[in-house]
Amino acid sequence: MLLPLAEARERVLGSLEPLSTERLPLADARGRVLGAEVVAPGDVPSFPNSAMDGYALRAEDTIGAPVVLEVLGTVLAGQAPNVPVTPGGAVRIMTGAPLPAGADAVCMVELTEPAGPDRVRIARAVPPGEHVRWPGDDLRAGQVVLRAGEVLNPASLGVLASIGVREVEVVRRPLVGVWSTGDELSEDPGPLAVGRIRDSNRPALLARLAADDFATLDLGILRDDEAVVARALREAAERCDALVTSGGVSVGDRDVVRLVLDEVSGGEMAWMQVAIKPAKPFGFGRLGSRRIPLFGLPGNPVSSLVSYELFVRPALRRLAGHARVDRPVLAGVTEEPLPRRPDGKVHFLRVTCRIRADGTLGVRSAGGQASHQLHGMAAAQGLAVVPDGTGLPAGAPVSVLLVEADDLPGPGLTESLGVPDLASAGSGGGPRR
Amino acid sequence: MLLPLAEARERVLGSLEPLSTERLPLADARGRVLGAEVVAPGDVPSFPNSAMDGYALRAEDTIGAPVVLEVLGTVLAGQAPNVPVTPGGAVRIMTGAPLPAGADAVCMVELTEPAGPDRVRIARAVPPGEHVRWPGDDLRAGQVVLRAGEVLNPASLGVLASIGVREVEVVRRPLVGVWSTGDELSEDPGPLAVGRIRDSNRPALLARLAADDFATLDLGILRDDEAVVARALREAAERCDALVTSGGVSVGDRDVVRLVLDEVSGGEMAWMQVAIKPAKPFGFGRLGSRRIPLFGLPGNPVSSLVSYELFVRPALRRLAGHARVDRPVLAGVTEEPLPRRPDGKVHFLRVTCRIRADGTLGVRSAGGQASHQLHGMAAAQGLAVVPDGTGLPAGAPVSVLLVEADDLPGPGLTESLGVPDLASAGSGGGPRR
Repeated sequence: MLLPLAEARERVLGSLEPLSTERLPLADARGRVLGAEVVAPGDVPSFPNSAMDGYALRAEDTIGAPVVLEVLGTVLAGQAPNVPVTPGGAVRIMTGAPLPAGADAVCMVELTEPAGPDRVRIARAVPPGEHVRWPGDDLRAGQVVLRAGEVLNPASLGVLASIGVREVEVVRRPLVGVWSTGDELSEDPGPLAVGRIRDSNRPALLARLAADDFATLDLGILRDDEAVVARALREAAERCDALVTSGGVSVGDRDVVRLVLDEVSGGEMAWMQVAIKPAKPFGFGRLGSRRIPLFGLPGNPVSSLVSYELFVRPALRRLAGHARVDRPVLAGVTEEPLPRRPDGKVHFLRVTCRIRADGTLGVRSAGGQASHQLHGMAAAQGLAVVPDGTGLPAGAPVSVLLVEADDLPGPGLTESLGVPDLASAGSGGGPRR
Repeated sequence: MLLPLAEARERVLGSLEPLSTERLPLADARGRVLGAEVVAPGDVPSFPNSAMDGYALRAEDTIGAPVVLEVLGTVLAGQAPNVPVTPGGAVRIMTGAPLPAGADAVCMVELTEPAGPDRVRIARAVPPGEHVRWPGDDLRAGQVVLRAGEVLNPASLGVLASIGVREVEVVRRPLVGVWSTGDELSEDPGPLAVGRIRDSNRPALLARLAADDFATLDLGILRDDEAVVARALREAAERCDALVTSGGVSVGDRDVVRLVLDEVSGGEMAWMQVAIKPAKPFGFGRLGSRRIPLFGLPGNPVSSLVSYELFVRPALRRLAGHARVDRPVLAGVTEEPLPRRPDGKVHFLRVTCRIRADGTLGVRSAGGQASHQLHGMAAAQGLAVVPDGTGLPAGAPVSVLLVEADDLPGPGLTESLGVPDLASAGSGGGPRR
């Protein structure tokens, strides 16, 4: 009996809460989720200032322009103005400099010209408030600047810096332990003995976790000895916020993994057969005094990474306090048939995605779709969601879970603006020879 | 005279080449660009093995199934088979275990049942090759596994691990120095004096660079003293692969920034007025014996981050060897009017992007669009490209430079599958209370 993906996800995600919070300096808080709202202690900007280089003046003095005004002084950014603007006068002002008393507008320098010693000619009438940034224009004192649950992106860190915040309360970032089991795994540098393979799941999962901004702990390969594995996991459960392994989770497995996980979780592991392909077998439980989540992923390399996307990453993002736990699921169009056989499962095909001239996503198979063919996963930017049935013809709409957003082939920015793509016509990618 | 964006980008990107390469252990190579192709030293898998738990057998013995075969032994993953499959016989086999000599197919365990001591009943005829992974099925010996210029994502690191590669030659990651100038910048924790502001550009740029996987060096605030700034930059140029500052680059500025950059670059700075809003002023030059790129960004906080997206990030990605230098530019639809005034410039509006039920991107203004209103940038997931004119009505197609792909609001994966979104119906985001 296969479990629908939505139910399997609910079993995992429904029970998880964000970790506790910690205070961090701004410079360490990038990508974290705010644990408490931040209120502006004062207006930003805190004083009226000029948005342009030019002349601070009284708007009423420019009625009937062109007019000639007396230059009373200069105010630079960072200075307090030392001369007010009196009727018929103007003060030269730089961008960001405080507006002198008496002034209510700025004429940009491009609309002025010198008119003798200490005199400036203003070409056009300037409306009141022109090029003035008023106090609180960006943020008002007492305003909630950022709410609990918001992600601290670079711009929001800039906002916090601008109001003098130096530390923020953020949700802890989960530390994730990853181990492998299986006596077939070889770590020797030399040629492989018959039956032995190299461990690719652990390096791939560790890299995936790091790319997704989780902290990682490499627990290595644990030999197929129940006592050894159990002790290692109990120790790791005291340090880590989640544990991930792959392999040994299938129904027929005589592996120690299921036995050990059942034991260390106190029999709480849910061993599921999920209605998806790849990544049908999946185990989930809680472990240790802090009841950290424990993920048993399938052993095939593609399956383990797909299982990561569907279960582990959303769960870890929930621990990290994120409201959005899934990668973006975008609308794409198949550029070739994506055939499959009906089997009661949703298929997640590894696909290349290219941005087409019209900005839509064109989707093709990234190569071999068997669950041991990791090469196709490496070439893919996304996972196409292909519902049960006989697959999709070319030109069909398809939902794509976008995994590698930065490396989508397609027009560069310049080409998107309707001119030849100078950015990619140059020396191109690849290293210097 | 304003310079079209495409020409300004060509001045920057056209002259840059990828950095030299270095050898790194796999675990440190995530996100790097390969400097040399990698060839598979042997087949992957290296031996025929089973894709299922079940029985290895001779397909011809199953003609006319159900049939009963003699169980000759068991082979586990990691073992060399110690018994061949002879006519009328079968060997119990686990997923990944080597196929014994004589066998040419595997019957999955679900289609078998015990039939007395050492006997198994095979329910259906098994075609030759069924559930067998042949040597070279994923990768063939001598095959180019990854080409120079490819990005090492987690799956490709898994592929390299699977073929026993432990070190790779990759393009160096640029080390980027960031400094601020301006006597108006305060680092004091207390209240601000009139005219003083806090430095938000440097923390925002440092976070942005780190989020984009560049290495950073915080050069701090350099006081407005030409000799001090020049010495600091010359020193930094020996360590860094690129230098970034913001502020003091406008036409009217009396700042030392332009003077110093002109001096240290040997007069090679190009001071541009680009036909974009925000981020019109922009300076670019080369510095030091290695002629590292030097970026002078505008001082307004929004402008500096937009300038980063349009010039600095693409340039640094070129240094890092990436073929795709721009963020994805996707097709979106305006969900409200995005008005603007004609001014001969392309506008990059800060917008929220949500994934709609049909998988398309819905686009709205993220708040105040003035260049000092960083709050809007913090709330934005993208920059909408609005060409010169009076703006866009609601419901219009619009190109969006997607900056924060992971935090797009929209249906979760489960909801995208056509069932209620259990993932976001649970405990939700935000920290534990």
